[in-house]
Amino acid sequence: MPRNAVLLNKDRLHAWMAELQLDAVVATTPENVTYMSGFWALPQWIRRGPQAYVVWPAPGKGDAEIVTSTATLDLVADQQVWVERVRRYGAFHADGYPDDAKDPVSQRLLQLQETPNHDDALSALVAALTDAGFTRIGIDEVGLMPGQFDMLKERLPDTSLVPAAGLLRNVRAVKTPEEIARLARVAEIAERSIKAALVVAREGASEVELARAFHAQTVQDDAFPVLGCIGFGERSALMNVQPSSRKLEKGDVIRFDVGGRYRHYRADIARIATFGEPTKEVRRYHRALLAGVERACELIRPGVRVADVFEAAIETVRREGIGHYRRNHVGHGIGIDGYDAPSLTATSDEVLEAGMVLCVETPYYELGRWGLQVEDMVVVRPDGTERLMATSGDLMVVAS
Amino acid sequence: MPRNAVLLNKDRLHAWMAELQLDAVVATTPENVTYMSGFWALPQWIRRGPQAYVVWPAPGKGDAEIVTSTATLDLVADQQVWVERVRRYGAFHADGYPDDAKDPVSQRLLQLQETPNHDDALSALVAALTDAGFTRIGIDEVGLMPGQFDMLKERLPDTSLVPAAGLLRNVRAVKTPEEIARLARVAEIAERSIKAALVVAREGASEVELARAFHAQTVQDDAFPVLGCIGFGERSALMNVQPSSRKLEKGDVIRFDVGGRYRHYRADIARIATFGEPTKEVRRYHRALLAGVERACELIRPGVRVADVFEAAIETVRREGIGHYRRNHVGHGIGIDGYDAPSLTATSDEVLEAGMVLCVETPYYELGRWGLQVEDMVVVRPDGTERLMATSGDLMVVAS
Repeated sequence: MPRNAVLLNKDRLHAWMAELQLDAVVATTPENVTYMSGFWALPQWIRRGPQAYVVWPAPGKGDAEIVTSTATLDLVADQQVWVERVRRYGAFHADGYPDDAKDPVSQRLLQLQETPNHDDALSALVAALTDAGFTRIGIDEVGLMPGQFDMLKERLPDTSLVPAAGLLRNVRAVKTPEEIARLARVAEIAERSIKAALVVAREGASEVELARAFHAQTVQDDAFPVLGCIGFGERSALMNVQPSSRKLEKGDVIRFDVGGRYRHYRADIARIATFGEPTKEVRRYHRALLAGVERACELIRPGVRVADVFEAAIETVRREGIGHYRRNHVGHGIGIDGYDAPSLTATSDEVLEAGMVLCVETPYYELGRWGLQVEDMVVVRPDGTERLMATSGDLMVVAS
Repeated sequence: MPRNAVLLNKDRLHAWMAELQLDAVVATTPENVTYMSGFWALPQWIRRGPQAYVVWPAPGKGDAEIVTSTATLDLVADQQVWVERVRRYGAFHADGYPDDAKDPVSQRLLQLQETPNHDDALSALVAALTDAGFTRIGIDEVGLMPGQFDMLKERLPDTSLVPAAGLLRNVRAVKTPEEIARLARVAEIAERSIKAALVVAREGASEVELARAFHAQTVQDDAFPVLGCIGFGERSALMNVQPSSRKLEKGDVIRFDVGGRYRHYRADIARIATFGEPTKEVRRYHRALLAGVERACELIRPGVRVADVFEAAIETVRREGIGHYRRNHVGHGIGIDGYDAPSLTATSDEVLEAGMVLCVETPYYELGRWGLQVEDMVVVRPDGTERLMATSGDLMVVAS
């Protein structure tokens, strides 16, 4: 596979592993398994319980390895996976006809089905770790089922196991080119989907009707719907508003806080439209919120403290029109998870690095009236901010 | 809210709580929180980490209570939630204009925001459990983050805490009328989506093109895409086949193993089409697989052992044309989770009960050739099987 299709930031991972003196790191959550190997294990993504892992050794300590159920080997064979070793567990019946197989995917799957089998996920993982002879291992503790971390400790008594979910979240914070390409595409899909939703915005159209048009565009563009907060009027102030039968009325604010998943990568953007002319207050407040996002984006560059970005955004919104503006954060990282590091808060000591992808946002809610929000996706580049957005955050007025 | 809209099988839960002498049960996974309260906490459903709970006391031990973050109270206010007490944690800024609020949802949210606040999820949960004075509590251990179960034990030293994920899975196995109504609708949506996909099946159409048409119908019917395995020809034998650019050719088998999520409830059905006339072997094998599902459905009724259903299905497929047929299971429960209890295996000692909803399936894969599968959703009724399907499992021949 093309080297540039790798999602994992290997250099960053290896630097952290050296710092923490880890022989290996084991991914266990769906996000981290896909991130570290390219392998998307369907059962793990749609339910809690099914287990798949990636064992990633430090440089010079051997080859990386996928541990997964026999029933998912077809996905290993069919996907752009850059980890070649695979260890399987569990039984799954599928008859093989190697002489008929023309597709290399079938051929690879037939080979994988001939590899040795383990009884269960943990036994396969223990075998992988034991065979490699690691003595100090970081385990992404979040994807394990209750009790499994302790079981691993019992079965690996001479090995030091340390939690590594935080480490992997940190590694994921700085994106590779392939990740940024996917994030740019999913941001674009979200913008196209907002546009499609606004096409059906007319007197009497419901929130659900806009949501249908929104998601229809998302699936047309080969993304999966995830976040679809679309609210009219008073409902636009509901922070997680789920589309209802509420019908559009003249003067309504329409708030979108939305984004799907494209090749596993998430979008999270926000835009405001009004149905007919907005009030002066809505226009002024929206302009203040937009100014806050723009100010944050001016400041963003490697070496800047996220707390300073937070302060500048809040201060700008206050100065530009909402004197009482308050927020806990003005954004967050985004990637294969919808909330990657860093979080743009007042109390964070994190510092921006080139390659981070951020959602920068200044939401504002007046319960009983309306909610306004601007949220853009941007990349931290050596010389400043690269917006991933094709549209501005300007207030859009739909003719009523 | 209408009493019949409750998802939770209260009688079954209370019977199990009495059996296990539990004062209360605490739901922690997204599925169990929604199931026990009607409350769908968005952040918990789309990521791992955000916490929401439902505390459900035994009869006579007080009122049920939702524990959730301040940032999600709008969803409590807006949804058909049958648990009235709410305990919140964490800060979230939203200004209130009670005099302007016309929507009861805004009014309810304004009230909820005035309730006392706790520092974090676990503190709120500990307060709820302490205030109620429970001495023996079942905790759905799967939704907690690593270490939280032990932290709860430390903070509730005089309380006995026992894992309860298995108990809740068992409770969920027997569906309420509202659950069955949702499952019937989502099954219908999956069938409609297959039909929509087959409309675009023509020479040179890709798997991805069929998937787009499939998901477009799903979102048009207000469901969310989840499972979308659609494969042509040799790729139909890949058990989890994800749509690719592979183009449809004359003679191809088209396998669908699909289903979305409608009002939180899952579909999982399978159908086979061929593009042009199938070979005799495909027709005979498909007929054998269909006969297996039909035989299982004839047997299904309360009191029957699932192992007997398994044996009958396998035996029928073998007798009707695939002498070497092997499977680990011939189906599973379905509900708010895609794999509810029971699992239809040879080794299970589970017995069918009225109100269970099952996916009955006989997949068969010839790697290098094609995969065939029939999967129906059915309800166990006192007098036998009620199919939730509008279509038969017959092989569909698309004119090539």
